[in-house]
Amino acid sequence: MDTRSTKVVIALGGNALLEAGTPVTAEAQLAVVRKTCEHLADINASGYEMAIVHGNGPQVGRIALCQEIAAKENPEDLPAMPFDVCGAMSQGYIGYQIQQCLHDAIRRRNRNIPVVALVTQVIVDEDDKAFKNPTKPIGPFYTEEEAKKLEAEKGYVMREDAGRGWRRVVASPSPRRIAEIESVKRLWDTTIVVTAGGGGIPVIENMDGSLTGVAAVIDKDLAAERLAEDMETDVLLILTEVDKVYLNFGKPNQQVLDHITVSEAIRYMEEGHFAPGSMLPKVMAAIKFARRFPGKKAIITSLDKAVDALEGTAGTVITMA
Amino acid sequence: MDTRSTKVVIALGGNALLEAGTPVTAEAQLAVVRKTCEHLADINASGYEMAIVHGNGPQVGRIALCQEIAAKENPEDLPAMPFDVCGAMSQGYIGYQIQQCLHDAIRRRNRNIPVVALVTQVIVDEDDKAFKNPTKPIGPFYTEEEAKKLEAEKGYVMREDAGRGWRRVVASPSPRRIAEIESVKRLWDTTIVVTAGGGGIPVIENMDGSLTGVAAVIDKDLAAERLAEDMETDVLLILTEVDKVYLNFGKPNQQVLDHITVSEAIRYMEEGHFAPGSMLPKVMAAIKFARRFPGKKAIITSLDKAVDALEGTAGTVITMA
Repeated sequence: MDTRSTKVVIALGGNALLEAGTPVTAEAQLAVVRKTCEHLADINASGYEMAIVHGNGPQVGRIALCQEIAAKENPEDLPAMPFDVCGAMSQGYIGYQIQQCLHDAIRRRNRNIPVVALVTQVIVDEDDKAFKNPTKPIGPFYTEEEAKKLEAEKGYVMREDAGRGWRRVVASPSPRRIAEIESVKRLWDTTIVVTAGGGGIPVIENMDGSLTGVAAVIDKDLAAERLAEDMETDVLLILTEVDKVYLNFGKPNQQVLDHITVSEAIRYMEEGHFAPGSMLPKVMAAIKFARRFPGKKAIITSLDKAVDALEGTAGTVITMA
Repeated sequence: MDTRSTKVVIALGGNALLEAGTPVTAEAQLAVVRKTCEHLADINASGYEMAIVHGNGPQVGRIALCQEIAAKENPEDLPAMPFDVCGAMSQGYIGYQIQQCLHDAIRRRNRNIPVVALVTQVIVDEDDKAFKNPTKPIGPFYTEEEAKKLEAEKGYVMREDAGRGWRRVVASPSPRRIAEIESVKRLWDTTIVVTAGGGGIPVIENMDGSLTGVAAVIDKDLAAERLAEDMETDVLLILTEVDKVYLNFGKPNQQVLDHITVSEAIRYMEEGHFAPGSMLPKVMAAIKFARRFPGKKAIITSLDKAVDALEGTAGTVITMA
């Protein structure tokens, strides 16, 4: 009998932290995180070993926005923090709430398993082609005049955003390596680790081997996949708003997918079924994992279907063959 | 021959992160942290096992200030974050810079030792008498009218601050327990852990065993002492601006202290030699550690004298007898 636990990396979507359309307050978030952690604790109580990667879009956006507002009022003393530091702050903020709520939810299931959030740097390639074409808008809207000034003064790349004003855009490079992976490995057997929050603090490796933070956004699903590869977990579990992946999502001919192979997933992807910035990176992360480990599986599902999906009765499963 | 490494908890003073009087910017801080980490790497290269506890006064003050400024501009969408969350953010911010610079400084000494910052909650007693008399000013100055409004609306305790305006004050309770201590223990043998940053995110333990964040400031020297007790380290090393503790500091009859016993330290403390909020909490932490472990020592010294102090040729040593 194989008594070895199934290892899972869980990628938490934005809806696991905040209700869509509500203000990004710590109190509102804590209430959502508390509910989310009930589901995560159920996964743990079902016997799975797990690590957690969360998003940080609205949170890091809010942190950057507060910085910009303060910098306008007092540019001498309160210049805006660099974006990598904003990301680090968001890891502290979100990691704190998850470790507090998840440990509690697990404890109430009569288990005593440590939960800890690690400040995590993720190394990206300086030559990643994403840096040539930054696409991820971050922070507040500006007038064209302000935008031109920021471009000149700070070297920001600014883009006009669908008639709503100008915003800074940053690159979304691929995660190459998790700088703190050794710590994750040492903790894994005994501890639930929250790591690579927001996809990780993006850093580049210099010629001399040192690391330097950069303004970029690493996709958290791809960071979770990176972690799942490093840990050789059995499952990459990507949690989002929908319980399964669909073709023609939201249209009359919508079609649910229970199980797809990598080659099917690639075909659907090429046919444009998956929205960029939404389902597309999830499917891409799932493909990468399934291709790397034939015989293992990636699952895309919702929080409340997570345990069922791990047991094989819910969600969309992506495998090599 | 005893080949066991000497274990040290290091408490980093504010000067290890920022130069006094300079704006609290990430760039200025990174430059100071980089220098600090050279000294820390020297300690590590001299064969000591270590964990690091850092302060966060100016950093959390800046985070809270930016929040307040943003909340004034847009109270609906950007209400100020609770103070425990500001502390969590500061752990992400400072922990990120320390782990990046320290790992690099160690690597350049031809050692490959992981460094990782843990988001850390520290449990305080709800009945701690400090909550009856909050004394730690945090965040921006307000007019009396604004202050009264905050007292009424948010339940803040506001105090007039030496003619400069009104400020929020919070309690500085004693650290009772480090919530993430198990993770520190599991990492210790292989990894340099940055933990309990800013004294830890202050939380109280509810009747049902869950934790709730509170607005408070835990002294980082006392948090470091708590960690040193938990880890039963050989040394508690408190780093600050001065290389030794003095009697009549800054006066003509100033007298340097190379080694003091707990009873001497208590006497000097009662005679008022040590400034509250400055040397006093350091001496108190040193006394607590030396009393808890007769035969072990606490050391108070400066960053650049740290290795010498560990070797016994610098700093002020505090022991039981």
